Amino acid sequence: MRRIAIRLEYDGTDLLGWQLQTHGRTGQGMLEDAVRRATGARQRVPVLGASRTDSGVHALGQVAHFDSASHLAPDVLLRALNYWLPADVAVLRAQQAPEGFHARFSAVGKLYRYRVLRSPQRRPLRARHCLRPATPPDLAAMQACATQLLGMHDFAAFTSAGGNAASTTSRTILRSEWIEAGDELHFLIHGDGFTYNMVRALVGTMLEAGRGALSPARFSQILRSRDRAAAGPTAPPHGLALVEVYYPPEADPFAAD
Amino acid sequence: MRRIAIRLEYDGTDLLGWQLQTHGRTGQGMLEDAVRRATGARQRVPVLGASRTDSGVHALGQVAHFDSASHLAPDVLLRALNYWLPADVAVLRAQQAPEGFHARFSAVGKLYRYRVLRSPQRRPLRARHCLRPATPPDLAAMQACATQLLGMHDFAAFTSAGGNAASTTSRTILRSEWIEAGDELHFLIHGDGFTYNMVRALVGTMLEAGRGALSPARFSQILRSRDRAAAGPTAPPHGLALVEVYYPPEADPFAAD
Repeated sequence: MRRIAIRLEYDGTDLLGWQLQTHGRTGQGMLEDAVRRATGARQRVPVLGASRTDSGVHALGQVAHFDSASHLAPDVLLRALNYWLPADVAVLRAQQAPEGFHARFSAVGKLYRYRVLRSPQRRPLRARHCLRPATPPDLAAMQACATQLLGMHDFAAFTSAGGNAASTTSRTILRSEWIEAGDELHFLIHGDGFTYNMVRALVGTMLEAGRGALSPARFSQILRSRDRAAAGPTAPPHGLALVEVYYPPEADPFAAD
Repeated sequence: MRRIAIRLEYDGTDLLGWQLQTHGRTGQGMLEDAVRRATGARQRVPVLGASRTDSGVHALGQVAHFDSASHLAPDVLLRALNYWLPADVAVLRAQQAPEGFHARFSAVGKLYRYRVLRSPQRRPLRARHCLRPATPPDLAAMQACATQLLGMHDFAAFTSAGGNAASTTSRTILRSEWIEAGDELHFLIHGDGFTYNMVRALVGTMLEAGRGALSPARFSQILRSRDRAAAGPTAPPHGLALVEVYYPPEADPFAAD
């Protein structure tokens, strides 16, 4: 058996998220079907992803792994997987994984991006990938919130119930900033991990600051309160994308690519 | 009666093009329904577009006009139209048109863009908006073709049958270049007009040069041949977008915006 690591892109619009469900299209489900067909396996081949992206969330660089007895070279496997995958899911890279690699447990960090459109009108060509608030948000106010997230914090105030109950809601954030990209604002956050719905709760609350409904000082209080009820609404999924999963150099299956 | 000019964005994926059809969703059809509802008109209100974009072709800046007895201010009309339009069509601007304005006949030029993705793998997040050739095309070869289009030429070799038979297939091209945009190549072409399927036939033929199947010298011969059978295939519609329609300053409804 070899462990194969794959890097994926998917459009989350028509997926019920990454994780396998009894009914409905999921990233994991599509991949497991494709792996079974591409390798001729007779039984289900579990495919484990680094991030369990929610329904509607996109991925530019999800990473997953699976174990296979197949002798296919990684680039042949890549083409075979893409042959079997639907149009909204694609494998970008496939490599034999380093010894002991685990897509989720070997990861040391992830980068997410949330796209906000500052346009007074709907923009159909970006409707599937950007949130468009009713009024264009104030960048400076949101930036003042974002910088407060740097370092280690307990993110209980920005954690939804319903995720796998982790022992702790403390996470370390290495990058947290809003950048201007044409008529869009992009929130980029790189952390060693993220609690359930954390990025969307952070964005939803920062957007409240962006429309003047709460101050950056109040945002700081909410973060320290550890009280989910104090924070703003969870931003919708379609603006969010998993951009990158980080591994230590010696464990990175794609380091040589 | 006032003449109202509107600027539109649409995602062409699920449209049968701009022009009204007996059955099926079209940009013109969606707009005519929205205008009728927004203005309370009892009969069909014809909406004339500057460009009759084909099925599957997108628009970032289509321009159209209609005549209405409505007294609604243009910005109120804009919001009412967007209320009635489906998610894949939006009005970006609405203005009372200058005297004698006609979206199509007043136009002095148009800019189209064709997006080509240079990725060895499928990219689901851009699948609706980029063509991905099987092998990444050679930029220099395509650029050598593109520059030959500058100036006035008879584009009969790049004109499909089936369009409204215009008296001439001569057009003047003011800009024709491929630019690199990350991992994409964009063909930008600005002309005083375009014959039926002209941009897609040009792109399809330049892509033949890009994969080494014909030389830039042969491209020049094809252009001069005026023979449609000599040119390459018509590139698929989903890579193409109408970016801008140009009007003389005194006739431009959006000059003050």
